[in-house]
Amino acid sequence: MNIDMIRAAARRLEGHARRTPLLRSPFLDEIAGKPLYIKPECLQHTGSFKFRGGWSALSALSEAARASGVIAYSSGNHAQGVAYAAQLHGAPAVIVMPSDAPRLKVENTRAHGAEVVLYDRFSESREEIGASLASERGLTLIKPYDEPEVIAGQGTCGLEIAQQAAEAGVSEAEVLVCCGGGGLSSGIALALAADAPGLRVRPVEPESFDDVARSLDSGTRQHNDMTARSICDAILTPAPGELTFPILAAHCGPGLVISDDEALDAMAQAFQRLKLVVEPGGAAALAAALYHARQTDAPSLVAVATGGNVDADVFAQALARL
Amino acid sequence: MNIDMIRAAARRLEGHARRTPLLRSPFLDEIAGKPLYIKPECLQHTGSFKFRGGWSALSALSEAARASGVIAYSSGNHAQGVAYAAQLHGAPAVIVMPSDAPRLKVENTRAHGAEVVLYDRFSESREEIGASLASERGLTLIKPYDEPEVIAGQGTCGLEIAQQAAEAGVSEAEVLVCCGGGGLSSGIALALAADAPGLRVRPVEPESFDDVARSLDSGTRQHNDMTARSICDAILTPAPGELTFPILAAHCGPGLVISDDEALDAMAQAFQRLKLVVEPGGAAALAAALYHARQTDAPSLVAVATGGNVDADVFAQALARL
Repeated sequence: MNIDMIRAAARRLEGHARRTPLLRSPFLDEIAGKPLYIKPECLQHTGSFKFRGGWSALSALSEAARASGVIAYSSGNHAQGVAYAAQLHGAPAVIVMPSDAPRLKVENTRAHGAEVVLYDRFSESREEIGASLASERGLTLIKPYDEPEVIAGQGTCGLEIAQQAAEAGVSEAEVLVCCGGGGLSSGIALALAADAPGLRVRPVEPESFDDVARSLDSGTRQHNDMTARSICDAILTPAPGELTFPILAAHCGPGLVISDDEALDAMAQAFQRLKLVVEPGGAAALAAALYHARQTDAPSLVAVATGGNVDADVFAQALARL
Repeated sequence: MNIDMIRAAARRLEGHARRTPLLRSPFLDEIAGKPLYIKPECLQHTGSFKFRGGWSALSALSEAARASGVIAYSSGNHAQGVAYAAQLHGAPAVIVMPSDAPRLKVENTRAHGAEVVLYDRFSESREEIGASLASERGLTLIKPYDEPEVIAGQGTCGLEIAQQAAEAGVSEAEVLVCCGGGGLSSGIALALAADAPGLRVRPVEPESFDDVARSLDSGTRQHNDMTARSICDAILTPAPGELTFPILAAHCGPGLVISDDEALDAMAQAFQRLKLVVEPGGAAALAAALYHARQTDAPSLVAVATGGNVDADVFAQALARL
């Protein structure tokens, strides 16, 4: 895993992934107490940054492997990202999703032409289901984060942040990233280390799923109690990845932790001040920027709003807090 | 009013207004039945395209006029655009707003440092109030649409559409624009006539406020019954402007008309498929693209989502339709 792979992915994504803007609101600056830039990956194709990794992985396969098809397991956003990237590449896709994933994510994955296989998140292992389907059908497994080409794809978001921050005159900042298995955080961290050494990633997680924060703290990979619950469905993962953790440990500052209520409040602020639809897990970094800025040191903050695939009833809960 | 004024405004806006992207969703293409590109001006500073005209007008004033201050009357988006542009220029601003404008728009206008004067939309004339305050206090009146530098500012959105459509390989399209007094529609129409002659503006209005459609049809300026009601508060104006109408008549195709229900449905689609918060009046063009595409001829459509300043309860109404 290195910066050259991220630059190569950026070339493959050119003209296919969206270059999302860097937004800012004086109202949000005031809450955070310092300049706060938002990178809205909810505006990416399929509504999350996961399209970057999906496209990167699909475009890195041999033609023969693409023709045989791919398989992915995901709480939803990786599913949609891989399904749409596969559809655009003309490759068959099977997606293994938890049966309690937001309805919209399941529907969208199917609408992108993928076959969806549902499993129970509390009693079954998606890793086992994925591996067994892959070998039965000759599919290439595209893991959600512990996969070099996926990390490289997510890292393209970091290349953009480095360039856009420089254009905005920001040379020193903490970059808050919603963190599940660490694919996006590690990709951005590698990109920033190369292109913007004054910018440092701070992974952000929900309470009860703060494995990365505890792992960075202790220096070894810590696990979550996966019977815990959080509204931040997109980033509920059991432990940091084997590939991602060493990268996070080498390049990131301490993890930040937010509550479900803070995620909902951040969604409401994104609605009101940025005109963006952000899902709970995608609002974690914005929540940390708004409500935990005192735990940051840098003069400026960047928060990645990682996704917007939220059902209307959950979004209405956030609106009700205004 | 000519293209050179729009290009000059674009130079003054450089680095101050946001260059909004051009978005697309396969789900929306399917509803429209043809490729549909969305220009999300809800992501512009202050949540609507009006910041373009506000900045253009403020930056065109002499330093002495700026120091004396400006006044504007507006249902809310022009208010915020002028107030924020004035604040950034260090100029005092007085804003005359209808007493039934969305609460958020009034609050935001005040938060940008402006003095807000409320009036009754059904019994008082904002034009008279504005003119009298302007002369009493020596303020420069910045009209919402019948003002050359405002039209020039809004026209910068058209320059961007011309360039972004060309980048997307689109040389022939109808550009649907939410239309009140016609400032944005006429500015975009002038820009497209110069830079993208295969792209043509179609103004879009709510039922009962279709003065531009009827005026284009008859060739003379028609008026609305201003006691009518519509949820599309941002584009409820009495008649086409004196400056804007001749431009619209020279360059635009026939007007399109949408219902309040269609505006709410389009808001729901923007939430679900684009992750954008769009207000009712700002969703009119998207509604026409999705639900009246058969009234268009071009092989592709562009819809400008003009603003996103909507109160949570109205947005919840749109979500409830999903």
